[in-house]
Amino acid sequence: MPNDNKAYAKREKAYMTGKMFPSVKVGMIKVNLTPTVTKDKHGIPHTVPNAPVYIYDTGGPFSDPSIEVDLKKGLPRVREQWIVERGDTEELPQVTSEYGKQRLADHSLDSLRFEHIRLPRRAVKGRTITQMAYAKAGIITPEMEYVAIRENMNCEELGIKTYITPEFVRDEIARGRAVLPANINHPEAEPMIIGRNFLVKINTNIGNSATTSSIEEEVDKAVWSCKWGGDTLMDLSTGENIHETREWIVRNCPVPVGTVPIYQALEKVNGRVEDLTWEVYKDTLIEQCEQGVDYFTIHAGIRRQNVHLADTRLCGIVSRGGSIMSKWCLIHDRESFLYEHFDDICDIVAQYDVALSLGDGLRPGCIADANDAAQFAELDTMGELVLRAWDKNVQAFIEGPGHVPMQKIQENMERQLDHCHEAPFYTLGPIVTDIAPGYDHITSAIGGAQIAWMGTAMLCYVTPKEHLALPDREDVRVGVVAYRIAAHAADLAKGHPGAQVRDNALSKARFEFRWRDQFHLSLDPERALQYFEEAGHTDGEYCTMCGPNFCAAKLTHDLRKL
Amino acid sequence: MPNDNKAYAKREKAYMTGKMFPSVKVGMIKVNLTPTVTKDKHGIPHTVPNAPVYIYDTGGPFSDPSIEVDLKKGLPRVREQWIVERGDTEELPQVTSEYGKQRLADHSLDSLRFEHIRLPRRAVKGRTITQMAYAKAGIITPEMEYVAIRENMNCEELGIKTYITPEFVRDEIARGRAVLPANINHPEAEPMIIGRNFLVKINTNIGNSATTSSIEEEVDKAVWSCKWGGDTLMDLSTGENIHETREWIVRNCPVPVGTVPIYQALEKVNGRVEDLTWEVYKDTLIEQCEQGVDYFTIHAGIRRQNVHLADTRLCGIVSRGGSIMSKWCLIHDRESFLYEHFDDICDIVAQYDVALSLGDGLRPGCIADANDAAQFAELDTMGELVLRAWDKNVQAFIEGPGHVPMQKIQENMERQLDHCHEAPFYTLGPIVTDIAPGYDHITSAIGGAQIAWMGTAMLCYVTPKEHLALPDREDVRVGVVAYRIAAHAADLAKGHPGAQVRDNALSKARFEFRWRDQFHLSLDPERALQYFEEAGHTDGEYCTMCGPNFCAAKLTHDLRKL
Repeated sequence: MPNDNKAYAKREKAYMTGKMFPSVKVGMIKVNLTPTVTKDKHGIPHTVPNAPVYIYDTGGPFSDPSIEVDLKKGLPRVREQWIVERGDTEELPQVTSEYGKQRLADHSLDSLRFEHIRLPRRAVKGRTITQMAYAKAGIITPEMEYVAIRENMNCEELGIKTYITPEFVRDEIARGRAVLPANINHPEAEPMIIGRNFLVKINTNIGNSATTSSIEEEVDKAVWSCKWGGDTLMDLSTGENIHETREWIVRNCPVPVGTVPIYQALEKVNGRVEDLTWEVYKDTLIEQCEQGVDYFTIHAGIRRQNVHLADTRLCGIVSRGGSIMSKWCLIHDRESFLYEHFDDICDIVAQYDVALSLGDGLRPGCIADANDAAQFAELDTMGELVLRAWDKNVQAFIEGPGHVPMQKIQENMERQLDHCHEAPFYTLGPIVTDIAPGYDHITSAIGGAQIAWMGTAMLCYVTPKEHLALPDREDVRVGVVAYRIAAHAADLAKGHPGAQVRDNALSKARFEFRWRDQFHLSLDPERALQYFEEAGHTDGEYCTMCGPNFCAAKLTHDLRKL
Repeated sequence: MPNDNKAYAKREKAYMTGKMFPSVKVGMIKVNLTPTVTKDKHGIPHTVPNAPVYIYDTGGPFSDPSIEVDLKKGLPRVREQWIVERGDTEELPQVTSEYGKQRLADHSLDSLRFEHIRLPRRAVKGRTITQMAYAKAGIITPEMEYVAIRENMNCEELGIKTYITPEFVRDEIARGRAVLPANINHPEAEPMIIGRNFLVKINTNIGNSATTSSIEEEVDKAVWSCKWGGDTLMDLSTGENIHETREWIVRNCPVPVGTVPIYQALEKVNGRVEDLTWEVYKDTLIEQCEQGVDYFTIHAGIRRQNVHLADTRLCGIVSRGGSIMSKWCLIHDRESFLYEHFDDICDIVAQYDVALSLGDGLRPGCIADANDAAQFAELDTMGELVLRAWDKNVQAFIEGPGHVPMQKIQENMERQLDHCHEAPFYTLGPIVTDIAPGYDHITSAIGGAQIAWMGTAMLCYVTPKEHLALPDREDVRVGVVAYRIAAHAADLAKGHPGAQVRDNALSKARFEFRWRDQFHLSLDPERALQYFEEAGHTDGEYCTMCGPNFCAAKLTHDLRKL
């Protein structure tokens, strides 16, 4: 990715090695800058070098030109050695879910199937293998050192003081304030951390709906979203061959993968909500745990008694999972199996270190419904559930809205911190006005930046097509960049160590007319370069925006000579 | 504009008549909605009408299909009668600026010239004719009633309580907390108000730089920006034939027009900063006052003693006007003529009721320079100047940054309110991170929404091309929509009366699958419809985003039947 065209010419992939664990090699993008050249009053040029800038990189092997990725074989398994060496997991003789067995046995699927499916691993009976369990036991894992290095980009090089150490990472995970998604069956994923004392992360969604898109398209979108900066990837597919598509995605995805298992469970009962059962759902969880999904959205916060709270809403229930479970509760007039079997769910996922994302099934779907009784009743339930997850050493975070006007954002954050015991918050935007379909990446980046500044750990991206259609490749790019902006703006506002290094380097390049350096440092070098070149620019000391006589930067340089 | 294609089929232009002044006819867009149709358990449909929604309209005659606009003749002069009837202004026998006379006498310009140039008006000697002077005298003008009606869109119809009355408008103008830009020589402009107790406004910039674009292109961009929702328009041209281009723009612009007169003054001295003089500048002011410019950006806040404060900045001075005046101060080693002649400037503009926008020549040009000594020293000077303007009954507002990380935005607003005596604040964004060239409409909409919520009265838009090139038509559209989003999000957060009506109507339409109603209510109906249709949608009860089985809205409707 970095060197495929001139927009990335000065970028290269670099690796930083762990001090505790030499097998930890944290990939990042190194941007090599040109020097600053000034002329003194005699016209003699003076050259001062500019330090390289490191950029957090979610591209994994795809951004390393020295690695040739073969999608048919999947990515290198960077975490496998660490997992195996811990000696607390074992390779199973076969997949254990009924559905997984069925699909493997179905030879009509052979042409669709990823060729190199490995046997799944699971915890040895009696061992607790989650990063949270290790952390509580005082253990620092290679994964923890990895994220500590990754979060400190530019700090050591530039002498910036940082509080983020492997010990700090461990303590935040132990406390439940941070999640390190790390299914032992997805060793291809590079460790990353979700918590409010770390860099703000963004999630991207892919997945087909009833209109089938092909497996190739979905894998392409997954890689594409990592290229632009997605920190995690949710596969929200609801169409055919979900199982096989997921295998392809997981095997080729360098970031943690999340799913909403109820979607596949519903497909298994042919879309009939009333036919959903704990047994079907449980088998789906095991199936996905063994494929390597890193976190599950579970709408266990829907309580029978709270469903009616959405009756008077302008927009009812807008969460797919929430509406499915609410309907199930009403049809059967009983508590949902997700709530009733929550401890069983935790016991299952703990064996693979799959994290739980407690889904906000009653999130508001418009400005008018924000911060209402339905939403906050569910938040209270999630606060109860997160303690139950932690009791079983299951990592967990909390999903949040949605649609919230700016003046109501802070209450969301404060209540979540308070009622959910500081578990990481993971919000969808929020969108701050409903009047801009076609531009909801912007309405939601506004809300996302604010709530992330206040403490939300991860933002789920929204594309321009939200509310209208499935995003295409270009929508994914624009959505990711809009969210990287929101996340980075929050990192700056929170004073994350090293966050401002890139801004300052880019600003300096801009002021010094080092145009190419400016573009190499930007979130979307291709777009910046495209706009610049389309306007007929060369690399002179002005641009068409102001022209040579009215360029303020040029005038300031004159000024400094006076 | 509203009925030119199916995206606008349910929109029509409507007018609301003044109660104090029957000649006040406030144009707005009326969106006629289809009824809500539900079926009871016997399958019998029930129809409930949905009230029409009124949308604030900046399109003027261009959005009224019953008016045929001839750009060669200019727009109807809606305010002329009111101005004439006040009897305190007079038509001059000829333009009074030297430059204006020269240009008129130059027959080589005849082919470029707007054909129907009228004689300018000016205050009768001894009379003070600004809206501020009337307001202080307790007079409610037709302009004031006009904006009161305009700001209360949907309130009367829906019984929403509102504090905005003609008396309130008058009092805010008298106090200096709001500006109603209303050059008596631009009677084509529809009255609007800029102040923090009113709807947040947005300004758009057009204008060519050294690469000349034609007069037609500039007029086209002006009309286009009004179509999308620009509340005021700044013509920042710096190329050839500025005078003639401006005449065309002003005569065809239904919103107030602003300029930065120092740009044209610099062209008159062939780009040589050192040759700028008060006399050239003064003649430029008179020239533009008589053409009908409604507000001038004046960088009078640059003091000789403060210029050096920018020396240690990462990005120096990034305001064109600021860098020009700073250079002038250093070359001549004296106080700027703008500061020294500020009272003279006020005396000139008061005769035409041109408002002053005190330009922030020392605004920060990157995150690193935000809230520094240079910026705040200038703000203090602007606080002194605004009192001097008010003493002469000149309406004034204050320009603000620029580039500010989120955690430093509030200090900007608080200082401005305090040091500038609550004069309206007019900011450029602010951009909250520097790492996204090509996406600065988003980086700045994030900051703009926040500062507007805190009290900024008007936001200057930023397009995707900012820092890279001049915007084209599509950039103008995207920039305006991004800023309408930021402004509206702030209106919601501030609780402006009636602001949420449109959100609620759109949300209801979305939930009820009244797709066309949703689009007619949106900020960019064409874009929303395009995305919808490109995805192959019909008007069914789901979209391709989730498909029929996973549509939460559909499921909620089922739920409500249970």
